[in-house]
Amino acid sequence: MISSDKIWTAGLVIIGDEILSGRTHDKNIAQVASWLQVQGIRLAEVRVVPDVEERIVEAVNALRAANDYLFTTGGIGPTHDDITVDAVAKALGVEVMVHPEARAILEKYYADKGGLNEGRLRMARVPEGAELIPNRMSGAPGIRLGNIFLMAGVPHITAGMLDALTGELEGGAPLIAETVGGFIPESEVAVMLCKVEQAHEACQIGSYPFFRQGRVGSNFVVRSTDKGALDACMAELCSGLAEAGFDYTMGGI
Amino acid sequence: MISSDKIWTAGLVIIGDEILSGRTHDKNIAQVASWLQVQGIRLAEVRVVPDVEERIVEAVNALRAANDYLFTTGGIGPTHDDITVDAVAKALGVEVMVHPEARAILEKYYADKGGLNEGRLRMARVPEGAELIPNRMSGAPGIRLGNIFLMAGVPHITAGMLDALTGELEGGAPLIAETVGGFIPESEVAVMLCKVEQAHEACQIGSYPFFRQGRVGSNFVVRSTDKGALDACMAELCSGLAEAGFDYTMGGI
Repeated sequence: MISSDKIWTAGLVIIGDEILSGRTHDKNIAQVASWLQVQGIRLAEVRVVPDVEERIVEAVNALRAANDYLFTTGGIGPTHDDITVDAVAKALGVEVMVHPEARAILEKYYADKGGLNEGRLRMARVPEGAELIPNRMSGAPGIRLGNIFLMAGVPHITAGMLDALTGELEGGAPLIAETVGGFIPESEVAVMLCKVEQAHEACQIGSYPFFRQGRVGSNFVVRSTDKGALDACMAELCSGLAEAGFDYTMGGI
Repeated sequence: MISSDKIWTAGLVIIGDEILSGRTHDKNIAQVASWLQVQGIRLAEVRVVPDVEERIVEAVNALRAANDYLFTTGGIGPTHDDITVDAVAKALGVEVMVHPEARAILEKYYADKGGLNEGRLRMARVPEGAELIPNRMSGAPGIRLGNIFLMAGVPHITAGMLDALTGELEGGAPLIAETVGGFIPESEVAVMLCKVEQAHEACQIGSYPFFRQGRVGSNFVVRSTDKGALDACMAELCSGLAEAGFDYTMGGI
């Protein structure tokens, strides 16, 4: 198979009671999704699960079986509710060990902050066979096991870990997207959108309605891995909008 | 079983390529989660899936089997990528029909906006046996089939539908939560947190670190359905923080 033809996919497991209680608004779905697009990897599914080992194991096993890559966020800190390492080790059937390099990083990081203690040492624990993902923000590294990546839950720390992984993962042609929008009720152009999409097999069209300044409108996003196909589809979509009597703005509004 | 002892749970399926591409930042997880807490229902799992029928069917069937209630957001609009109704009907093994009341609502709503057309009529389609969830924002109603609720993806429309359902669902004792926080590195109190949680079986303690004004800190959230148990746990947690030499603020910082 030619690498550029393969569609690479990833699953994401968001781990944490704080998301399911509504206390914390998740920012990692959008952040991981956008980063994956640039790597040429499609985010195929996200599951948000509580801090319960069997639920994490189940989600990790389901999404790693179905995708090329698996990412998790959350549950790799120092406290008792941080159980991602244990759950992933269980899912993979491997032991948990203290990673010597992670321990050294944490010893250095906490040298002038009271040194290592039981909680801090938890952050050096990894499933056997793991490598580390650098964390330039706060010492405790992320964890990589082949195509599985365990990252922090705090979004700016996650961002640093993603940054460290940029360009490291094999992917396909990046999905590219272009947007056109206007004060256009999607219900007035729904049939046209469907016809245009059907005429352009290599493209998908998404329709995203909004209400703004007391008026309804929509942005239409054409996605493809093929720039030529995308341009042709977008041209036909714009013609369709013009024929239906609507003003539109490239790039969306 | 005494109703107040049962823990009622819900699953949530977020449907939409726009979330998985990172284009749209999800706001419905937090909104649905917070609303459910007030109803005495615990959000047990969220899955985000693309606009692909078999993927929606799979997620809907998995989460409705595992929970008392199932909610979906997204994919009930007028365009070709709005396939939630068809997917849920398939998951339940029922036909899709045009709901007469939904059709009447839409006819009235669009009377001075060009009337019904093929796209708009799509929004009157429901799985057979469904009732409607009022939508005071934009005409097209949500859909209820027993313990399954299909809601809009646009957050303020979802909010209106949740509002219409408030008090309609049987739940248990609401989960209550109290927070204490401070410029306290969670890694310095991790062992104490674990001991306090173990001593208070009816409570869970979540630890949520942050970085602010160049300093690390944490908020600790105690959750329980029992106010007395929660108060006792919180008192011991605060003593533990004081003994460790930290200032703390009730309500969190």
